[in-house]
Amino acid sequence: MFYVIGLGLSDEKDITVKGLEAIKGCERVYLESYTSILMVSKERLEAFYEKEVIIATREMVELEADEILRDSDKIDVAFLVVGDPLGATTHTDLLLRARSLSIPTSVIHNASILTALGSTGLQMYNFGQTLSLVFYTETWRPDSWFERLEENLRIGVHTLVLLDIKVREQSEENMARGRLIYEPPRYMNPHQAFSQILLTESLRHPKDPSSSSSSSNNGDVDVDVEVKESLLPPASTLAISLSRIGTPTQKLISGTLEELAQLSEEEFGEPLHSVVIVGKKLHPLEFEYAGRFAVGGEAGGWWKVGKEVYGVERETF
Amino acid sequence: MFYVIGLGLSDEKDITVKGLEAIKGCERVYLESYTSILMVSKERLEAFYEKEVIIATREMVELEADEILRDSDKIDVAFLVVGDPLGATTHTDLLLRARSLSIPTSVIHNASILTALGSTGLQMYNFGQTLSLVFYTETWRPDSWFERLEENLRIGVHTLVLLDIKVREQSEENMARGRLIYEPPRYMNPHQAFSQILLTESLRHPKDPSSSSSSSNNGDVDVDVEVKESLLPPASTLAISLSRIGTPTQKLISGTLEELAQLSEEEFGEPLHSVVIVGKKLHPLEFEYAGRFAVGGEAGGWWKVGKEVYGVERETF
Repeated sequence: MFYVIGLGLSDEKDITVKGLEAIKGCERVYLESYTSILMVSKERLEAFYEKEVIIATREMVELEADEILRDSDKIDVAFLVVGDPLGATTHTDLLLRARSLSIPTSVIHNASILTALGSTGLQMYNFGQTLSLVFYTETWRPDSWFERLEENLRIGVHTLVLLDIKVREQSEENMARGRLIYEPPRYMNPHQAFSQILLTESLRHPKDPSSSSSSSNNGDVDVDVEVKESLLPPASTLAISLSRIGTPTQKLISGTLEELAQLSEEEFGEPLHSVVIVGKKLHPLEFEYAGRFAVGGEAGGWWKVGKEVYGVERETF
Repeated sequence: MFYVIGLGLSDEKDITVKGLEAIKGCERVYLESYTSILMVSKERLEAFYEKEVIIATREMVELEADEILRDSDKIDVAFLVVGDPLGATTHTDLLLRARSLSIPTSVIHNASILTALGSTGLQMYNFGQTLSLVFYTETWRPDSWFERLEENLRIGVHTLVLLDIKVREQSEENMARGRLIYEPPRYMNPHQAFSQILLTESLRHPKDPSSSSSSSNNGDVDVDVEVKESLLPPASTLAISLSRIGTPTQKLISGTLEELAQLSEEEFGEPLHSVVIVGKKLHPLEFEYAGRFAVGGEAGGWWKVGKEVYGVERETF
């Protein structure tokens, strides 16, 4: 049997009893380590499972799938994934590969950030499509996520934004020279995420579009220039940062995009993080619950914008 | 400590090691039993936990929250929820209540249908807002879900539809007479779900709207009657049923809405079920994976509609 087993979000004890029992019977145990991380070391997993754990890099999963699957029609092999195992395309691919080799498979589910985001107080029912934000560089700022965010905002639903992690990345120089030297892992902090979101927002919706377009038009009125209203005005859009969800140091911060973008990296602390952009369908109970984490407490922009822009009346608890 | 602990989807061993350890130290253990069910009996949970389990009805959670929370500032109390614990408003409410009483709380996450739907091969990233479908009666057919479905379809994302369950419902007669006699529990089958979806679709988009509107107009042309194109034509919309996800008898069936609506209740089998309406952003890998469950196999409408309507080219595995 080829087991694909979710590990949940925080430490070695977030595995299910069923998952742990499966691992105990396995001859090889792989840990997928490039789309997310647990908050504990490989050694701690090994001690708890009483098994050696083989780190499965992206290259290994993509190029050596048959080695991972080897003999699993006769013996038990486990492929461990942080969160729920069916969140990323690659693992579906591995399951399809197993099935084409007539290897029996079993998926053991677990918690994922997609359900744990309930910790914000926002209802899972009210979320639209999930986005991924990658590290921008000077020359590479992929922003196709922005259209998906606007699609969500237009229908008033919340958006979960997953933040990039870089594990086993090579520098350009090392890659050019073929040296297998890897940079230290990097995990995007909400500080950077909010900066990138505001940057893309400002590029898509320049603050004073009429002046910039008229200067290039030599005074002619260009009727084709349709100035679309921004769906993401920083001072009147609510957002929430989620840090280390499911761990003892879990931290949520809610506020306007503008307020959150002004916080330092340290305010959010250690990885992993994600971010939620709040949609206009915000319910009073969601508003109240997430407001407990508001920047500035009772005087924070959360309450003002929620009432004046989102039109949500506060209940009392 | 007041623990809110997710049980996952199938049986007593889907609890996390962390969740199980917490239960072992609790003096009272409640099981929320009206929004979802596990596939095993309360007795089996009790044997596994070595604890008495108190069934928490909706009335109890709503009216006797303080009794559930009693003394949990001094002792440990567990509130168990099938799936992930933060999926339903009521439990957020319970956490808010606990905090207003200065009771420390801890949420232990677990798998939910919202992540386990990855079993379809569809990517969680591509899902829009989740819907709930309640049992229609002769006189009560709440269809506000239809607009949310159309919002999702318009932007091309998939829709998870959760199906009604009725636990501890009274008949009208018993309710009128104040008799605490409950009907047997009912769980909506995909057969009924697809029928209800098609019924509402046909009411919202009559097959020949011009004839019905002109007959009431006595031949006058009514320019206000805008015939909107249906976003959910049964023969060219793809859908998937999910039955008993996470259990050994898990069953998925994919096809057109029309094909799925023609299947009998028995095809889907025992509860619990949910349904997915597939959006136009369907990716080739999603198409291929979910196609393994197609009604009619290789000759099924899944492949034809996927190619001709959704424009997805099949890859080869």
